[in-house]
Amino acid sequence: MSAADGDKPKRPPHVVIVGAGFGGLACAKALGGAPVFVTVIDRRNYHLFQPLLYQVATAALSPANIAVPIREVLRRHGNVRVVMGEVAGVDLERQEVSLANGRQIGFDRLVVATGSEYHHFGHDDWAAHAPGLKSLDEARAIRRRLLAAYEEAEAIRDPARQAALMTSVVVGGGPTGVEMAGAIAELVRWTLAGEFRHIDPKQSRIILAEAGPRILPGFPEPLGRFAERALADHGVTIMTDSPVEEVTAEGVRIAGEFIPAATIVWGAGVKASPAARWLGVETDRGGRIPVNPDLSVPGHANIFVIGDLALAIGDDGLPLPGLAQVAKQQGEHLGRALRRNLVRGAPMPPFRFRNRGNTAVIGRNAAVFDFGGRLFKGRLAWLLWALIHVYLLVGFGNRLLVSLQWVWRYFTHERSARLIS
Amino acid sequence: MSAADGDKPKRPPHVVIVGAGFGGLACAKALGGAPVFVTVIDRRNYHLFQPLLYQVATAALSPANIAVPIREVLRRHGNVRVVMGEVAGVDLERQEVSLANGRQIGFDRLVVATGSEYHHFGHDDWAAHAPGLKSLDEARAIRRRLLAAYEEAEAIRDPARQAALMTSVVVGGGPTGVEMAGAIAELVRWTLAGEFRHIDPKQSRIILAEAGPRILPGFPEPLGRFAERALADHGVTIMTDSPVEEVTAEGVRIAGEFIPAATIVWGAGVKASPAARWLGVETDRGGRIPVNPDLSVPGHANIFVIGDLALAIGDDGLPLPGLAQVAKQQGEHLGRALRRNLVRGAPMPPFRFRNRGNTAVIGRNAAVFDFGGRLFKGRLAWLLWALIHVYLLVGFGNRLLVSLQWVWRYFTHERSARLIS
Repeated sequence: MSAADGDKPKRPPHVVIVGAGFGGLACAKALGGAPVFVTVIDRRNYHLFQPLLYQVATAALSPANIAVPIREVLRRHGNVRVVMGEVAGVDLERQEVSLANGRQIGFDRLVVATGSEYHHFGHDDWAAHAPGLKSLDEARAIRRRLLAAYEEAEAIRDPARQAALMTSVVVGGGPTGVEMAGAIAELVRWTLAGEFRHIDPKQSRIILAEAGPRILPGFPEPLGRFAERALADHGVTIMTDSPVEEVTAEGVRIAGEFIPAATIVWGAGVKASPAARWLGVETDRGGRIPVNPDLSVPGHANIFVIGDLALAIGDDGLPLPGLAQVAKQQGEHLGRALRRNLVRGAPMPPFRFRNRGNTAVIGRNAAVFDFGGRLFKGRLAWLLWALIHVYLLVGFGNRLLVSLQWVWRYFTHERSARLIS
Repeated sequence: MSAADGDKPKRPPHVVIVGAGFGGLACAKALGGAPVFVTVIDRRNYHLFQPLLYQVATAALSPANIAVPIREVLRRHGNVRVVMGEVAGVDLERQEVSLANGRQIGFDRLVVATGSEYHHFGHDDWAAHAPGLKSLDEARAIRRRLLAAYEEAEAIRDPARQAALMTSVVVGGGPTGVEMAGAIAELVRWTLAGEFRHIDPKQSRIILAEAGPRILPGFPEPLGRFAERALADHGVTIMTDSPVEEVTAEGVRIAGEFIPAATIVWGAGVKASPAARWLGVETDRGGRIPVNPDLSVPGHANIFVIGDLALAIGDDGLPLPGLAQVAKQQGEHLGRALRRNLVRGAPMPPFRFRNRGNTAVIGRNAAVFDFGGRLFKGRLAWLLWALIHVYLLVGFGNRLLVSLQWVWRYFTHERSARLIS
């Protein structure tokens, strides 16, 4: 790194990474310490462990337990700086990212890793009544509604209204919906039971509504069947072939029937973030940007897209799913590839996804795990799930805190974060 | 409790407690299991451990770490119910509390324990720029401002504006102000240092402004002097004889000088909550309601006031200070007294305060402790402070989590709750 051997010091190449999710952060870490200047831009000051957001929404964990400051994660890499800001656009010609505050940041390589959000099948007005599980604000909103509904039910005497307040509907039978429905069931049937004098939270109704013929469509059928039985045992009513027709402040209409419900959670219909517009490129129907095998954008060799925003094709010829492990592997791969490319001029190798297993947890002692053929379910899958999720949490302090809270909750059913804020 | 011995079952007497702070909760617990019906009314669903709010404001703890659901604390007492609601008034004639939602709750005995809030010396417009430390919302607001200021300072290049963004002013040299100033110093000089590339958080300015001649006026002078030295060692500038003359969005004016500052915290001028208006009684200048030795309100033998709202006179003839330990002892005393009075007809005994020691923490290894004559300072006082505060936290789960986070922070300087939300 010394310029003492007579060479004139060159300005190091600049890699700009937009988004500090699983993909962006892995990419930045892989570039840490390299003779490359890296800027990570994110709207928030923290990296969020999205797979555990439903535990914040159901008061099992605090927001800070699943969020770690981006600066803390990257502090030891002197060549990486963090900018908290909103990206407004990209000037492809001048190779500049412009922020909403007017600032311009030039780049030699741009990595776009801005993820995805839920979309409400074109009904934007539904979003206010049925928050998704993508941000801490949404998780806090769900927690507030859920807990406040039981407070209101305790305070009133109208049985019909009480029943509506004690009804939750989760839309979408994928892993997020399954985990959310299971967690709500545990919250109301165990934690809240016994704390009220006028209502019995055990009489709550929790509905998981799936438009398709079965839940967990991304998993082998035996695991989907196991999840249905386990959810039913936990007190969740599963409605398949039941697309949602309407969402209002009062409830949802499913298959012609209006179900009054105070808490509605949206876990269906993922859409990529609107970053494609910055690049002026075509996307698929879900807003994803098709990428080359090396994750670059066709026609833009210096621009890369990773994570939920990327439409990358796997070895089986199918698009890779929008999973944390895909984003993380892409980020690591791209960071290492850029490092070799920018430092030694090595070519950019293609990305290959290695499936680490697909999982969903239903509740206490019940989860499913699919390691591409080898299937696990029940208590063993649940233990595996917990170990792996604690291991994947960024930051050792958070790992300790989350483990402790899970062990505590397992034995006491107490939940540490039941704030109506 | 059986009605089998021929007596007609009587409706048990009804005690209504407004406010689930230290006083109200202690009173409810002392009445738990008695042949008395108890209703606890609070605006929030959680009891807040206010003495540690400054640790939430400085990102050391999560809101949920210092809050515990009121229902959880009281769940095992079947005779106690919890109502989440806002009290709108009290009908003394009909012995009814009316809630903002229109509901009426009758009582045989009423305990008012609604605490105090900060007041900005008659300048209500200052409150928006200088939040106090009374609620989780305020603590979150301070945390957000503090952390966002350093993000902004890193993003801009104007040195004067950077200096303002890296300046914090804490108003009030009592325990709250001292603890807040010390905690800000630790946050910026240890945790944030090394995470920025364009600013050096160690160059931050932290000012503790006190209107009187010295800080910690409620403590013996040697402890006040120790605190001044310890704060100076931590990088805090102490300004005594420095009443605040103006607070704006840009900073504060103290002794004619305007100090540009992004973060202003208010810790001076406590005022009792406006509950006196419900009872139509006279208060002192601080809004406190004078009480009889048995904590009842003169002229209203069935109404009691405890905690920060009560103006109770101690053995030394002086008003008891607004401390958690005073409220807690009053609540315990009143709960036990009401129990004996309502069940056995025993007279209401007078309350006597027993001083358990007065403490303030400055930072790492530095605290002061006054046990009414025996003074401790430095590392021993700091250890005592930590042990006692963990012990006093409600809920064993929270004790574990807080202890773990303190030990973690002591060794790593990492803070677990650095969210800009």
